[in-house]
Amino acid sequence: MHDGGEVVVLRYGHRPGRDDRMTTHVGLTARALGADRVVLPDNAGGPAETIRDITDRFGGPFEVELRADQKAAVRNFGGTVVHLTMYGEPIQTVEASIRETHRRPSADLLVVVGGEKVPWELYERADFNVAVTNQPHSEVAGLAVLLDRLFQGAELDREWVDADRRVVPMATGKRVVDA
Amino acid sequence: MHDGGEVVVLRYGHRPGRDDRMTTHVGLTARALGADRVVLPDNAGGPAETIRDITDRFGGPFEVELRADQKAAVRNFGGTVVHLTMYGEPIQTVEASIRETHRRPSADLLVVVGGEKVPWELYERADFNVAVTNQPHSEVAGLAVLLDRLFQGAELDREWVDADRRVVPMATGKRVVDA
Repeated sequence: MHDGGEVVVLRYGHRPGRDDRMTTHVGLTARALGADRVVLPDNAGGPAETIRDITDRFGGPFEVELRADQKAAVRNFGGTVVHLTMYGEPIQTVEASIRETHRRPSADLLVVVGGEKVPWELYERADFNVAVTNQPHSEVAGLAVLLDRLFQGAELDREWVDADRRVVPMATGKRVVDA
Repeated sequence: MHDGGEVVVLRYGHRPGRDDRMTTHVGLTARALGADRVVLPDNAGGPAETIRDITDRFGGPFEVELRADQKAAVRNFGGTVVHLTMYGEPIQTVEASIRETHRRPSADLLVVVGGEKVPWELYERADFNVAVTNQPHSEVAGLAVLLDRLFQGAELDREWVDADRRVVPMATGKRVVDA
């Protein structure tokens, strides 16, 4: 849906059971708000299945990948790394630079969303450590604001391919039709 | 932080244990992104305590309220009711109307974030049923995008009062100082 390279969201760390819902929401938010792919730790098989199931029903393209070595995935990523952290620079001061980086031809972007404790080397590898406010809140909220600002709202008009069903927007009520 | 009336976020429904983290993230997102108050069901005492604790440490003003009757709270709200739902009208088509409504003097706004099944009367009571995409994703992500668009980014520059500590934005690293 975008001009530049691929946008990948990587969920750093996952505790099975305890983090299932948050990790699922990270993946579904990535899909709904314009990312191309989510990379989850390989112990997040449950969330991966849920996200794939939603993609089967509501459309894609969107990929879910399970990877054992998250550190290597970040370290070896061949593009710009954006790390979401409440300790980073304000999104309103760095978003234009991130958008510019991403508009270059085939300039892939990796958005790292912390789960468990994030190692120091990730702060160093990141091209941008970005804070959506320097307040503690939610990695899902931070990801949503980042993607909405990265795509400047264009993600909301995305067309979905190979969906089984489609929600028809309504002022009052619920309507779902076959796609 | 805003010109209009109060902005209140109401979390509709809560299952203790299972929803604790999501409800906490709804409240913390409301606080971080410019709302004045969050209303939680009265069985969400744990999340309420966490959100109050963050407010004590990182500043306010921000209020957490527990209410037994969520239906009555919505029905009797003396202002505009915005209901976040994937079945609603696209945010990009209604956001200007919502902002305009809220800019009137003392025009309070209630943002309802669904948890368990939301009753039909809530769709009818809502002045705006709003979808942040018509895709299934996360109520926390939807709330974040709605608040960021309602305040048009002004929430990111909010000053906090009575904080114990403050995060200093850094390009690389973590720095927290006494406030």
